[in-house]
Amino acid sequence: MEKTIEWVREKNVSRMVEQTLLPYEYKKVDIDTCSSMYNAIKTMIVRGAPAIGIAGAHGVNLKAVELKRQRVDIATFKGELTDACDYLISSRPTAVNLMWTVEQQRKIVKNGTSVDEIVEKLIDNSIKLEDEDIKINKKIGYYGAEIVPRGATILTHCNAGALATVGWGTALGVVRSAFEKDKTIKVFADETRPRGQGARITTFELVRDGIPTTLITDGMCSYFMSKRMIDVVITGADRIAANGDSANKIGTCTLAIAAKYYKVPFYIAAPKSTIDMSIKTGAEIPIELRNEEEVTIVNGKRICAEGVNVINPGFDVTPNELITGIITEEGILAPDKLSTIF
Amino acid sequence: MEKTIEWVREKNVSRMVEQTLLPYEYKKVDIDTCSSMYNAIKTMIVRGAPAIGIAGAHGVNLKAVELKRQRVDIATFKGELTDACDYLISSRPTAVNLMWTVEQQRKIVKNGTSVDEIVEKLIDNSIKLEDEDIKINKKIGYYGAEIVPRGATILTHCNAGALATVGWGTALGVVRSAFEKDKTIKVFADETRPRGQGARITTFELVRDGIPTTLITDGMCSYFMSKRMIDVVITGADRIAANGDSANKIGTCTLAIAAKYYKVPFYIAAPKSTIDMSIKTGAEIPIELRNEEEVTIVNGKRICAEGVNVINPGFDVTPNELITGIITEEGILAPDKLSTIF
Repeated sequence: MEKTIEWVREKNVSRMVEQTLLPYEYKKVDIDTCSSMYNAIKTMIVRGAPAIGIAGAHGVNLKAVELKRQRVDIATFKGELTDACDYLISSRPTAVNLMWTVEQQRKIVKNGTSVDEIVEKLIDNSIKLEDEDIKINKKIGYYGAEIVPRGATILTHCNAGALATVGWGTALGVVRSAFEKDKTIKVFADETRPRGQGARITTFELVRDGIPTTLITDGMCSYFMSKRMIDVVITGADRIAANGDSANKIGTCTLAIAAKYYKVPFYIAAPKSTIDMSIKTGAEIPIELRNEEEVTIVNGKRICAEGVNVINPGFDVTPNELITGIITEEGILAPDKLSTIF
Repeated sequence: MEKTIEWVREKNVSRMVEQTLLPYEYKKVDIDTCSSMYNAIKTMIVRGAPAIGIAGAHGVNLKAVELKRQRVDIATFKGELTDACDYLISSRPTAVNLMWTVEQQRKIVKNGTSVDEIVEKLIDNSIKLEDEDIKINKKIGYYGAEIVPRGATILTHCNAGALATVGWGTALGVVRSAFEKDKTIKVFADETRPRGQGARITTFELVRDGIPTTLITDGMCSYFMSKRMIDVVITGADRIAANGDSANKIGTCTLAIAAKYYKVPFYIAAPKSTIDMSIKTGAEIPIELRNEEEVTIVNGKRICAEGVNVINPGFDVTPNELITGIITEEGILAPDKLSTIF
């Protein structure tokens, strides 16, 4: 399977799809320094919780390769890499996957004894994470396909596809696995303002896969649910608290509330690494506030009067009571039963 | 008070704000034929249920003036005007105000005995409707201001302001009346995709009035409600069934469901003429389906992959159980008590 983000050993770079160009252009770029990786995550050249997890691991690799080239001593090497870990984690605060992968790399740095050994282990680990991500997504797809009724129309939000991961996808992984078994399923994709990942990226992936896709605006969910045109809602997640409260792209909670009202099942599809057992509830999940221009400017043109205020939270938290189940690589769990897999 | 749409007697034209140019340009255009009025309504040069009601009445005037100029006989005059009434009503099916005003004009045509008399009565009636609209909105504002708590933040959707009416506004009329009494109120305006009336028109009106305004995207309502940052939701309506079910701009129902979940009061502000006692429930309200490009193209550029389907309903219906009250010129009514004012 094609990897949407991968470490290229021969060149010591991270190669990734430049996602801000979608749907107009599908192009890969090589990221070759730690600071350009920070910017790639921050500006959403790479986005999606599992994908930025891999990007973070690659960011540590890049810093390690850079320091090795400078022939620094092992103490400087470890010190600077520890700083790089903190720096990379600070790029986006909500998704826990970024922390999870960078902390793995930090442990390798801490326990290593020579520069060469650490560089090699960091790279090996990041590639192992890539491969695992695809395997995990295939398992999520396998379990998730069970809950998709025959001929169902699935509503999804933002993009939790191959491009949000290394390959296959989480929520869209479920869609793809379901479509392998049943060619009559259909997808409704939410536009997902302000960044439009649903319109730009999800429609791109689904059309490429030949899965019938209808684009709707974010406010339309109630209309289609009231007409019984949506059978199930499946989204990804950026961080899930121990009690099942789930942070995901802004607008997800609104969908979940509408789904509850119209008695449409609402599922989260995410790897176990998205579950943060260290925090009890969603209230503890930090929500990233992003810049105003994402809201006020669309396709280069301002859409509102001068003089308005903007608050632009990148995520919201869906309370556990609105979630029918959380689809992981270890099976589908009720939101209050997450501890059973830890 | 400035009228955003008005009949100009000296020129026999309908003068209106060209709303598709907002927020970049505030400019008035003169509409001088019945068919260009049809197009002005259809393409949303004029929009907002009460405003298109007036536009419809003016459309009948324009046809009458045209026929008078052609010196047709009274039978031809009446026949062609009746056709013009049907034609104008067909421009937008959801808002009942358009039907309500055009049917008044139709009655004048039917009961009149000479061309000159009918033309004069049509014009007089349309100007009476304009003046009444402002008076009605001021009353809606007067009653509605009562339910706005001191220092409240009001969330509104689409545009139900001076530009959706002849002046003052319905939902924004309530905001303006409340602001006259309490300068500490604030407004959150939903973007209102696909046409962006909230971003384009509501922010324009509120900034001009000096009312502090925050623009949010349509999916964000839950985030701000969960943080107790919204005290009350007020929107307009395009048609209200006898049981209180209310059609309004697509996305309104989604807001109302979120408001119910977070126990935020949800009000509709609309003139009595928006209530259609001839239909029992919202299921009978025809919902206009609009063109795909409103969803797929923003500021001249496509936002999604080629090959996606689009369904673009212009309105949704909020069930009566989600509505705290309907603010009319005759007071605030529970949705199941509408018959008391008829």
